[in-house]
Amino acid sequence: MRIAYLGPAGTFSEDALRAAAAEVEFEWLPQTTIHGAILAVEKGEAERALVPLENSSEGSVRMTLDTLAFDAPNVTIAGEFDQPIIQALIARDAIELGAIEVLLSHPQATAQCAGFIRAELGHAEPRAATSTAEAVLAVAKSPQPWAALAAPAAAAIYGCTVIREGVEDDPGNVTRFVWLAPAGTELTGKGPWKTTISFSELGDDHPGALVDALGEFASREVNLVRIESRPLRPAELGRYMFFADLEGSTADASVAAAIEGLRGMAENVRIHGSYPVTSDGVPGLRS
Amino acid sequence: MRIAYLGPAGTFSEDALRAAAAEVEFEWLPQTTIHGAILAVEKGEAERALVPLENSSEGSVRMTLDTLAFDAPNVTIAGEFDQPIIQALIARDAIELGAIEVLLSHPQATAQCAGFIRAELGHAEPRAATSTAEAVLAVAKSPQPWAALAAPAAAAIYGCTVIREGVEDDPGNVTRFVWLAPAGTELTGKGPWKTTISFSELGDDHPGALVDALGEFASREVNLVRIESRPLRPAELGRYMFFADLEGSTADASVAAAIEGLRGMAENVRIHGSYPVTSDGVPGLRS
Repeated sequence: MRIAYLGPAGTFSEDALRAAAAEVEFEWLPQTTIHGAILAVEKGEAERALVPLENSSEGSVRMTLDTLAFDAPNVTIAGEFDQPIIQALIARDAIELGAIEVLLSHPQATAQCAGFIRAELGHAEPRAATSTAEAVLAVAKSPQPWAALAAPAAAAIYGCTVIREGVEDDPGNVTRFVWLAPAGTELTGKGPWKTTISFSELGDDHPGALVDALGEFASREVNLVRIESRPLRPAELGRYMFFADLEGSTADASVAAAIEGLRGMAENVRIHGSYPVTSDGVPGLRS
Repeated sequence: MRIAYLGPAGTFSEDALRAAAAEVEFEWLPQTTIHGAILAVEKGEAERALVPLENSSEGSVRMTLDTLAFDAPNVTIAGEFDQPIIQALIARDAIELGAIEVLLSHPQATAQCAGFIRAELGHAEPRAATSTAEAVLAVAKSPQPWAALAAPAAAAIYGCTVIREGVEDDPGNVTRFVWLAPAGTELTGKGPWKTTISFSELGDDHPGALVDALGEFASREVNLVRIESRPLRPAELGRYMFFADLEGSTADASVAAAIEGLRGMAENVRIHGSYPVTSDGVPGLRS
């Protein structure tokens, strides 16, 4: 079993994968982008991927949603895994905050620490890296007093020092990861199930259409636990695609009927996966 | 009149401001972040701000939504301005794409050119800058073969060269900017009006609540032209705030009644502005 994720060593994705697949032997396939991790499953180069979907303070990971919607027709969501996130300020050596000239990180991490940065690092020049681990690597290599925001564990991996731990604005910071698998993978699991769908509004029919579409679920008492809008492609201001998470499985009559009803009032209706919410280890491996 | 925007010289925000306020004399107040531009109005350091709200291919500008929702109670949306966006690949000298080692830009610009980057610049190391203009400035200063994604005009400002123009994935790329003014600013305008509100779901009451809330508008035939979800603060996975744009003004009986109805089934209902969609020049300056 090969599992793709956003690398290199020391990313939050690596931390999450270690925790989520603790009791399984597998081959680690670090990728340089989330897009690459998802495409590894699409192309059959990996049997699973674990990618971030949503952070409690920063919201959806758009790269994940857009890649699933537009570039990965043969990939299904197979489970989810919530990982608490602790951000650390990391430098090569123990330096004062006032001496930091450049602050590097992945934009998601920077956003999670926006309040801390404004309060204490307003003097530092912010720069983005492709992952939090890449940020630490750049700090390790730089002779200047630079710092990175990343997982505390990344400091040791790259020979750096944690200047301050827990610099995320929200102490309850959590990232929800999703397991991805080839479409058709059989899933089993006790816990409650969840179904992720996407759809777009009918041609010229605007807002009322969204309300009507959602009414298909409400009228059948199918709970909607999340909705997120993204631009349609080809893009046009004012036309959107919606991602929705429903409670229940497509094997439930009410969920199936609601999705069927939705097909009559929305376009591009697609089921991205129906999966047990709490999976034990890698989904689809054991029952 | 002082107008705040995301600087420095050569940003898309500067381009938009030049186009949106063509016939007015004003003092340009460039800020290093969108957050700073909005707070300049909140603190009374500027009379107006023009900030990006939404891009046709990349979606909402989260910094704008979150700052309006959480840090700017005394700021109102006073108008909007759509600016076509052409992205250019810019280097110091005319070099081949294959020679580019580092690709710098603001994450929004990078996302708008994601397909181009994957197809032609996969070998370059992506780095983020705080604005597209800052990216060009860094390229101008670097002795290495770096490139930036930015507005074509930024090349001339920083003594650089446009390597390729129109590298955005979507040729109809448009960014919607909003005008911000102190709360209470009187607005006049012909065209149709729009009202922007935000609200969060009631305590433990989930999805049905969103559908019911939206029903308040549908039942009064108030058109909803946009809805966007953002994490609530303090953050918790699964609890959201919603931004919605409605057709009409709060002076319309149906819009007022729908918002009143919403207050009974949602929390934190807030009106972020009611404004003419097409304003001529700086809103609130002339009638």
